[in-house]
Parts: sequence; C-alpha cells; structure tokens
Amino acid sequence: MPKVAVLMGSKSDFPVVKPAVAALKSMGIEVQVHVISAHRTPEEAHDFASKAKDNGIEVIICAAGKAAHLGGVIAAYTTLPVIGLPVKTDMMGGLDSLLSIVQMPSGIPVATVGVNGGENAGLLAAQILGIKYPAVAASLLEFKAKMRKKINEDDACLQAELKDL
Amino acid sequence: MPKVAVLMGSKSDFPVVKPAVAALKSMGIEVQVHVISAHRTPEEAHDFASKAKDNGIEVIICAAGKAAHLGGVIAAYTTLPVIGLPVKTDMMGGLDSLLSIVQMPSGIPVATVGVNGGENAGLLAAQILGIKYPAVAASLLEFKAKMRKKINEDDACLQAELKDL
Amino acid sequence: MPKVAVLMGSKSDFPVVKPAVAALKSMGIEVQVHVISAHRTPEEAHDFASKAKDNGIEVIICAAGKAAHLGGVIAAYTTLPVIGLPVKTDMMGGLDSLLSIVQMPSGIPVATVGVNGGENAGLLAAQILGIKYPAVAASLLEFKAKMRKKINEDDACLQAELKDL
Amino acid sequence: MPKVAVLMGSKSDFPVVKPAVAALKSMGIEVQVHVISAHRTPEEAHDFASKAKDNGIEVIICAAGKAAHLGGVIAAYTTLPVIGLPVKTDMMGGLDSLLSIVQMPSGIPVATVGVNGGENAGLLAAQILGIKYPAVAASLLEFKAKMRKKINEDDACLQAELKDL
Amino acid sequence: MPKVAVLMGSKSDFPVVKPAVAALKSMGIEVQVHVISAHRTPEEAHDFASKAKDNGIEVIICAAGKAAHLGGVIAAYTTLPVIGLPVKTDMMGGLDSLLSIVQMPSGIPVATVGVNGGENAGLLAAQILGIKYPAVAASLLEFKAKMRKKINEDDACLQAELKDL
Amino acid sequence: MPKVAVLMGSKSDFPVVKPAVAALKSMGIEVQVHVISAHRTPEEAHDFASKAKDNGIEVIICAAGKAAHLGGVIAAYTTLPVIGLPVKTDMMGGLDSLLSIVQMPSGIPVATVGVNGGENAGLLAAQILGIKYPAVAASLLEFKAKMRKKINEDDACLQAELKDL
Amino acid sequence: MPKVAVLMGSKSDFPVVKPAVAALKSMGIEVQVHVISAHRTPEEAHDFASKAKDNGIEVIICAAGKAAHLGGVIAAYTTLPVIGLPVKTDMMGGLDSLLSIVQMPSGIPVATVGVNGGENAGLLAAQILGIKYPAVAASLLEFKAKMRKKINEDDACLQAELKDL
Amino acid sequence: MPKVAVLMGSKSDFPVVKPAVAALKSMGIEVQVHVISAHRTPEEAHDFASKAKDNGIEVIICAAGKAAHLGGVIAAYTTLPVIGLPVKTDMMGGLDSLLSIVQMPSGIPVATVGVNGGENAGLLAAQILGIKYPAVAASLLEFKAKMRKKINEDDACLQAELKDL
Repeated sequence: MPKVAVLMGSKSDFPVVKPAVAALKSMGIEVQVHVISAHRTPEEAHDFASKAKDNGIEVIICAAGKAAHLGGVIAAYTTLPVIGLPVKTDMMGGLDSLLSIVQMPSGIPVATVGVNGGENAGLLAAQILGIKYPAVAASLLEFKAKMRKKINEDDACLQAELKDL
Repeated sequence: MPKVAVLMGSKSDFPVVKPAVAALKSMGIEVQVHVISAHRTPEEAHDFASKAKDNGIEVIICAAGKAAHLGGVIAAYTTLPVIGLPVKTDMMGGLDSLLSIVQMPSGIPVATVGVNGGENAGLLAAQILGIKYPAVAASLLEFKAKMRKKINEDDACLQAELKDL
Repeated sequence: MPKVAVLMGSKSDFPVVKPAVAALKSMGIEVQVHVISAHRTPEEAHDFASKAKDNGIEVIICAAGKAAHLGGVIAAYTTLPVIGLPVKTDMMGGLDSLLSIVQMPSGIPVATVGVNGGENAGLLAAQILGIKYPAVAASLLEFKAKMRKKINEDDACLQAELKDL
Repeated sequence: MPKVAVLMGSKSDFPVVKPAVAALKSMGIEVQVHVISAHRTPEEAHDFASKAKDNGIEVIICAAGKAAHLGGVIAAYTTLPVIGLPVKTDMMGGLDSLLSIVQMPSGIPVATVGVNGGENAGLLAAQILGIKYPAVAASLLEFKAKMRKKINEDDACLQAELKDL
Repeated sequence: MPKVAVLMGSKSDFPVVKPAVAALKSMGIEVQVHVISAHRTPEEAHDFASKAKDNGIEVIICAAGKAAHLGGVIAAYTTLPVIGLPVKTDMMGGLDSLLSIVQMPSGIPVATVGVNGGENAGLLAAQILGIKYPAVAASLLEFKAKMRKKINEDDACLQAELKDL
Repeated sequence: MPKVAVLMGSKSDFPVVKPAVAALKSMGIEVQVHVISAHRTPEEAHDFASKAKDNGIEVIICAAGKAAHLGGVIAAYTTLPVIGLPVKTDMMGGLDSLLSIVQMPSGIPVATVGVNGGENAGLLAAQILGIKYPAVAASLLEFKAKMRKKINEDDACLQAELKDL
Repeated sequence: MPKVAVLMGSKSDFPVVKPAVAALKSMGIEVQVHVISAHRTPEEAHDFASKAKDNGIEVIICAAGKAAHLGGVIAAYTTLPVIGLPVKTDMMGGLDSLLSIVQMPSGIPVATVGVNGGENAGLLAAQILGIKYPAVAASLLEFKAKMRKKINEDDACLQAELKDL
Repeated sequence: MPKVAVLMGSKSDFPVVKPAVAALKSMGIEVQVHVISAHRTPEEAHDFASKAKDNGIEVIICAAGKAAHLGGVIAAYTTLPVIGLPVKTDMMGGLDSLLSIVQMPSGIPVATVGVNGGENAGLLAAQILGIKYPAVAASLLEFKAKMRKKINEDDACLQAELKDL
C-alpha cells in the first residue's frame, strides 16, 4: 500500500496538481492531497514533514509558484524524496518558481520537474515507488507502451490527413 | 538601544554580510550575527524567528544564495520587517537568489535589496529603525551628506586628472 | 497617527497600488496616494520627497514600471524607508521593472517587493510602522492568524472536494 | 545491495559528478560510473538504459551540459527514476543545461537537481533508495544531523570571530 | 527527386510544421511528415534516422518544444543535415526549446532556425538541396524575387494610406 | 564650437566612459566630464541638467550601472538629446543596467547604446552634432573610411597568416 | 524644414511606428515613411541609406523585430544618426529585438529606445533636430510642460476618486 | 572540389572560427576565410554574397558577436545555405549573438549552431556538402565512428581511474 502526499502552497494551484493525482490514482497508488503553505502555515508544514515517514508517506510532491519555498521547507524536515513542481507565473513563464525550487543548496535536494509538469510529478513519484513495489513498476511499463502506441496512432492519423491536404 | 539580527544561510556568505554589519555599527546600532540555515537548521530558524521580537530584535536581515529561502522562512514566523539580501551565484549573476527572495506570495513580504547589496541591507535596516530612533535618523542624514561630499570630491579629482590627459 | 505615502509613476498603475492602500487602511493606517512621475514631474518628486518627513510621512511606497526610477529618485531625497513596487510589463513579466528598482547602488536602498506585489508593499509598510506603533504590530499578528486560518479552511474544503472526485 | 548508475555525457564532466559518487559511497551505496553520450554513443545509451533494470540498477544519475539530452534519452528507454544533473556552462550559468533537462514533455520525467549540484544528485538517489533500504534511510538521518551540527559549529565559530572584530 | 523528412515530437506541433511543408511543396520538393517522439517512441526515432539516407532522405527537419531533444537524437544516428525547429512554449517564449536544440555539443550539429520558424525551416532545407538540384536553386531565386516585390508593393500601398491620414 | 557633456554615476565608471571622450576629442569636439550621481547628488544632477542648454551643452552622455537612473533623471530636466551608456555588471552581463536605461516610459527617451559601448556613445553624440556642424559630419565620414580600411587590412593580414597554417 | 525618415522592416510594424510619426508631425516635422527590409530588400536599404543625407534626411528611425538588423544595416551606409525601435515579439517580450539592435559593435552606434517605444523614437528624433532648429526645441519644451500638467491633473483626479472609495 | 566560405565580422573572432576551418580541412574540403563586417564593410559583404555562387561557393559560414548581423546580411544577397556561428559575449554568455542570428524573419533563414560552436559550424557545412559529394559523406561517417571510439575509450579510461580512487 504505497502512499504519496501531494502538497500545494495555495488552493489555486490545484489545477496544476490534478494531473499528478490522476497519474498516481491510475496506477492504483494511494494519495493524500493538502493545502499547506510554507509561509502562511509554517507550523503545519513542519508538522506534516516531520511526521510524514511515520505516517507511511514515502514520496512527497510539493507544488508552488513564485518564490516557491514549499519543497525546500518540507525537505528540511524529512529524508523522504521530495518532488518539486514549479507553478507557471507571469515572471518569464515560471522561471522564478523553477529557480526557487531547483537551485537548492548542497545537502537538501528537491527533485524538480518542469514548469506546470503535474503529470510528470506524479509519474516520477510512481517511478520512485516502482523500485520497491513491482506492481507500480508494471503499471509504468504499461503506461510507456500506451504512450508509444498513442504516438504511432497519431502518426498514422497524420498520414491520412496529409493525403487530404 | 535598537537591535538588528543579521542571519546568513552559510558561513561562506559572511563577506557579503559584513558591509551590512559595518554600516549598522558605524551608526551605533547593536547587531547580532548568526549562521542559520532554512534547510539545514530549520528548527533553529523557527526558534530564532519566533522569539526574535521578545528578544528585542526589531529588524532581521537574511542573506542567502541560490534557492534562497531563509528570508521567507524567517518571515513566516514573525511580523517584524525582514530584509532579504540575495547572494551572487553563477546562475545569471544571482538571478536565482534574487527571484527566490523577492517574489514572495501575497501576505509575507520580504524587503529585498540588490544582489550582494550588503551595505544597502544595513542602511535599509537603519532607515527602518530611524522612524523610531531619532539618533539613527540623524546618522542617516550624516551618511547621506558624506556620500554627496564624496561624489563632489571625486568630480573635483576627475577634473584634475582630465587636465593631465 | 502613522502615515504612509503611496506614489505611482502613472495613474494607470492604480490597480497595482490599490491592494497596498487596502492593506494599510484595513489596519487603520492613514495613507496618502499620489501620481508623481520621476520623469514627467521631477520637481514634484523632489518636492514631495524632501518634505515627506516634515509632513509626518514615515514610509513611502513607490510603484513604477519599465525603467522604474521613481523609488530611486524619491530615495535620493529622503532617509525615510522607501518601498519599491515593480509593475508588471511585457518585458519578461516585469523583469525590467524589478531590476530597475532592486539593483540600487550602494548607499541608497529601495526595499523591493515582488512584481505587482501591491498587498505585500502595504504589509511591509505596516511591518515597518509596527516596530514603533504597537497597534499596528497587533493588527499584523491578527492578519497572520487569519491567513493561517484561511489556508486551513482551504485544506478542509479540498478534502471535501476530493471525496467527490 | 542497492545500485546506482552515474552517467556523464563527456569525461570532462567528471568533477561535477564526483560529489555524487562520494555521497553515495559514504552511505555504503554501490555505484557504477560511465561516460556515455546521448549523441556520440547513442547505441550504448540505448543499450545501457534498456538493460539497466535487469542489471540491478535502481536509480540512474545523468550529468550533461548545454543541449543536455542524456537524461531524456536514458529516461526514454527505462522506467527507473532518472536524476538529471545540469552541468554549468557559459550560457547564463548553465540555464541551457537546466532547461534542456528539466522541461521534459509529459510522460517522461527527469528528476532535476540544481546546476553543478553533484552532491544533491547523489543524496537524491540515496533518498529514493531509502524508501526501500532502511540502512540507507538511517544514513540519511545521520547525514542530516551532521549538517545541522556543522551549521551550529559554524555559528559558534562566527561568534568568536565577531568578538575579535 | 529530392526528399525531405519533417518530424515533429507531438501531433500538436503540426501548425508550426505546416509552413515548412508548404514552402517545400511550393518548390516541388517531395516531403515525408511523421510524428516521432525522441522520448515516447525512441525506437522509431532510432529506426527512422538510421535508415533515412538509404531511404533517399537528404535533409531532416525536426520540430519540438520544451526540452526539445528530437533534433539531437536524430542527428546522433545520421550524418544527413538535421534542421531544428524550436516550438514556442510558455517559458520565455520558447527559450527552453531554442537552447535545447541549438546548444548541441561539439560533433553533432543541429541547424537551428528561429522559434516557430516553420517557413524558414522549409526554406533552409530547400537551400541545402539547392546546392545539388538546380531546379530548387531556381525556385529559391524566384521566391527571393517575390519577397522583394511584396515589400515594394507594401511600401507603395503604405504611401497611399499615408496620404489619407 | 559644439559641446558634449559626459556624466558618470560613479568615478569607477571612468574606464567605460574614456572611449567616448576619446572618440569626441579625436573629432575636435569639446567635452565636459563629470561625476554626478542620480542618487547621491540629486541636486547636482538637477542643477546640471536644468542649466545644460544655457551652458551651451548640446548632447549629454550618461553612463551608469545596475539600477542605472542617471540618464532618465537628466532627461527629466532637459529636452537635449540624452545618450544612455549602460555599464557592465555581474547581473547577466549588464542586463540590469541596459533595461534600467532603455525601457524609459513614453515621453522621455534616452538614446541607448550597447553595454560598455563607450566609443559608440561618443560616435552617436558626434552623429547628432553632425547634423548641425559640417566639420563633425566630415570627421565621421573619415572615421567610417578608416574603419573600412582597417577591416580590409585585417582581411589581407589574415590571408597571409592562413598561408602559413 | 527638418526631415526624418521612418523605416519599418515589415508593413505589420506600422502600429508600432505610428506614434513616432504622430509625435513628429505634432511638432511640425516633415516625415517620410517606408517599408524597407534589411533582408528582403537589401538593395533598397542600401540605396535609401546611401542617399539619405543628400535627400535632405537628417535622422532615420528604423523599426524592426526579432533578429532586427534594419538599424544596423542602415547605419552601415550613413553617418546620420539612426534610431532603433525594437518591436515586441514573443521571445521574452522583445528581448531578441532589443539585443539585436542595441548591442552594435564599436564604430556603428544605433540610438535605441525601449521595446515598442514608438513615441519615444519620434521624440528622440525631435530632440536631435532640436539642437539645430529652435522651433523644434520650443515644441519639445511645450510637450514637456503638457506632460507635467497631465500628471498633475491625473493626481488631482485621483484625489477626487479616493474620496469616493 | 567543394567550396566553403568562412566569414567573420572581426579578426578577433578567428579563434572561434578556427575549429570550423580545421574540421573542413580535415575532410579535404577547400575553404576560403575572410574578415568581412556587415557594418564596417557593407559593400564588401554585398559584393561577396552576390558573387559567392558564381565563384563556386556552396555554403557560407558567418561568425559574429553581439548584434550579430553578418549572417542575415549575407543571406539577404544569396540563396546559398548560410550557417550562423554566434560568438560568445559578456551579455548572458552570448545570448545577444545567438538571438541576433537565429531569430531571422520569415523568408531568410540562417542555419544557427551553438555559441562558439566553431567545430559544429564546420561539420554542418560538411553535412550539407555531403548530400552532393559522396567523399564528404564518407568522411562524416568516419568522423562519427571516431567520436564513438573516443567516448568508449574515455569510459574505459575512467573505469581504470575509478579503481584507483
């Protein structure tokens, strides 16, 4: 019964977080989702991170935008792998979120995915769990096969459309 | 007896912090200086920020580089004004530090100065104290007058040098 | 009776400035608001800044966009703390405004908040006043408690929504 | 007996990769290190990635610079977690490497650490293994405690130095 | 009978690719168009690139966005000229796509055109073929003459409009 | 007897300013050079700009770095053409200086040259004067001819060197 | 009878160029407007620039976007002052246009205004002509006075609106 | 007897250009090298480009830095494939050169390689010639094989070094 926690700094980040939750659920991985802000609810962040492992959490996904400190703050209180999901902003398309998350000082890594890369955050959590849970690893292989099939179908589709051009 | 705390995320940031301390001391403002990391010593950060006001601190300067979360983490635990001092890095000259500090979400401001702007961090702290302590306000006027005199002297100096060209 | 002046370089910046005024008023802080341009009304800028302290002003917020010189020009004529509020532009989401405000030369700090960070500019002004006026400090604690409560409620709300998914 | 593979696109990246290897070895984690280029030895990359899981590899670290495709190419052929380590370049301090690694399309995540963040790449690999191997998890707690102690000592040290100022 | 292959990483890139196909067809150059993803169908990418020359392909255009590896991956398996066409993204207007394509390591060039520069990708392919096929070279001269005529007509048009202002 | 004023925000900018002075002097154009800071000596800046035209100045060059307000501040007080010369900084090679100078709001242009483009600032001032003073226009033609000759000589030189390779 | 030429690389740039033409006409300055492309009509560009001075042109404004070479190409063939007007693009808000125009090599300056700064391009041309034509200088003073009056009126207006809040 | 012309905007760019010349010569491809500046010798640029095809040139490499217009100017006068080689500058590591070259308007492509990518410019020219000259295509295959062998040797070498660690 693997478990992933998905945290977001603000409820307005939920649309970015949703594909992560969907990806995990589609592989049968149980997920907790919470609004916890590094700046507005620091005590809750501290509390959640400190107890996460004991509560059976194995991977934590943290979505945040702008000066996005949530991933770093959570990573400060746990040794579980923390995945950082930068939320798109107006500042150069989310470069502020990205740099605030990925450029962590030595000693406290945050595994960063692309800006608004919700699905990839979920898949990365699954890949991490997959080294421990064979069922998850199997789901990932299936997912990979489906992606390949989808591209092949898109290509076949395109050939048909091109004929009509 | 005003009091400023100057925190840095790593002892290697001390050269950037030094001009802040010097500016404050030159105006007779008492300073505490500490190495406290948002990520490596989160408990100490929490503790320091929570008690800062009761310990007589009125302004806190936080210097940090890269994914520079120190200012935000401290600001999460206090309502004292927090000054963020971005440390220069290799990533576009400290743009990562700057954006990680200045782009704070609504509700938790960090008063940001320029990259490696140690002296300005100290002067800003003095300006804040100056609204309460007339002696500090007087020192700032003196400082401003000296700066002006220095530029005027530089100009006079330049005129002499130009003649010799 | 604390006093904050909020200046904007152009009347079109008012929507960015409004949350600063609102935040200050909600804490019972009296505010002056003016359109003063560093470039189009330099005499007025000079005049306002030079007399600000004598007129009872204790903090000045300056909102401006693009080559945003207003904060620097005001700071040149006063030793009061000046808060710079960068207005979003088309140039990389306001990076021009941000750098023009935050990268001040040594000697004349401008306390910069994030791009379009109107509320934070107001809160920072309140935090500065809070070191002198206990009533403002109390309002800030209340504000912080409300923010925390809001996030907790958002999280509770989310849990309900997730059940329905 | 957990196993991590550390790949680099060019032998000249070894100094960036070394701290990753050191971090892993210090926690008793066995490591393979290889020079494999996505562009110059694509067959080897394909071969390595396809067989990695069967060869007992559980996490793969890929260091590359500029148009850094190694992580993506490896991730295309495996469902193991792939950690991307961007190597610093002259282009804005490695922004090219960072964006080429982190901005992966949906479906194929690469867990990215900061530019030249070798130690963090190693620690992240350890955190991932830690969810499966209790001994690694214990090593990480020890490492975290040491980091904290080091900062505390640095602070104590600083206090002594400040007295002498 | 010259032949160009136009590949795109995702079917959603087709609008960016279309002007390339149109430019080539308008010069009588035969084109193949395929959806092939460096990450989702790496085997197909490998297969296509390895056999391209034997299949009579002489130039390959690769359109991709974000961490845009398609051009590099194709170039790894062939010595045909590969043209990289960066697709616009939200990250600073496609800077991520551009840098991921153009900053190739020494030894494996990708001939990069501007972001969303579909027509230019097609014209560049024609210019390359033009050194071998005089008919294509002739078409290019015609195209250049038409562009010049169009600008001259636009100028004439403008003069008329200006009179009416 | 045309006259150009060259202002710099800090005496340390003199090496960047020197080529401007040299270019002007080489064409027989009389130059004034001053250290005047928009922030440290705002009164002097105001004074200089207000009286510049009456003092016979026809073009003003303003060199400054970081939040480079000097050009804008001078332009606020005069209708003479103001040339902005951005000084290189650590922030992305002077992007902060450049944007602070070039992105002026509508109504107050600053004619900006490239980062550290001292010679070009001088030549631009000469080009402006050249529309009024035929002697300056003649000097510019001579300068252009010399540049061309220099490139032709460099090319001849290169051919010789290539033979020895 | 001063004369300014306004060139644009594409007729689609006309909206950006219009405010330049309007500003010049409002001051009674005669303007020529042309679509001339550095790349599509290089002969026309060469021709226009070479003869501009003899045709009575005194200042040339060149608007262009992306790899904006028009200003540089025109400046190569004349010693008249050339004003570069960068047109906004999707690439970081016109940073490509700006850098392509402002970063001219030593010897051939282009007086650059802000991105989409059409009015400023026109005003800068007027300021240049103003050093020779007193009537233009007088118009500029009037324009400056009007700007100041407008800001003062905006401020008065704002005070009225604030009362109603 | 294929022919490539390598042009540079300034003789100081020769170190960047050298690897292009070396790569071409190593494959037996005859090269012409010239210093021709788009801005300082526009007539020569025009002349060279217009006659290039008649002079037997089939590919032109243009190296330039900052506002790097050489590639675009040459491409304006020819339908031969033009390769743009951006030279590193202080402005964000050559981003100015890169954008000035790659972001060409529709109709006039410049095949851009990475910043300071001299060898790749040469190899790309060879790949283009390779579609016409089988001997060149054969040299490229040999070159690719050597690169692969070199990486394999580097890897073997690394294994030996790792044992000694």
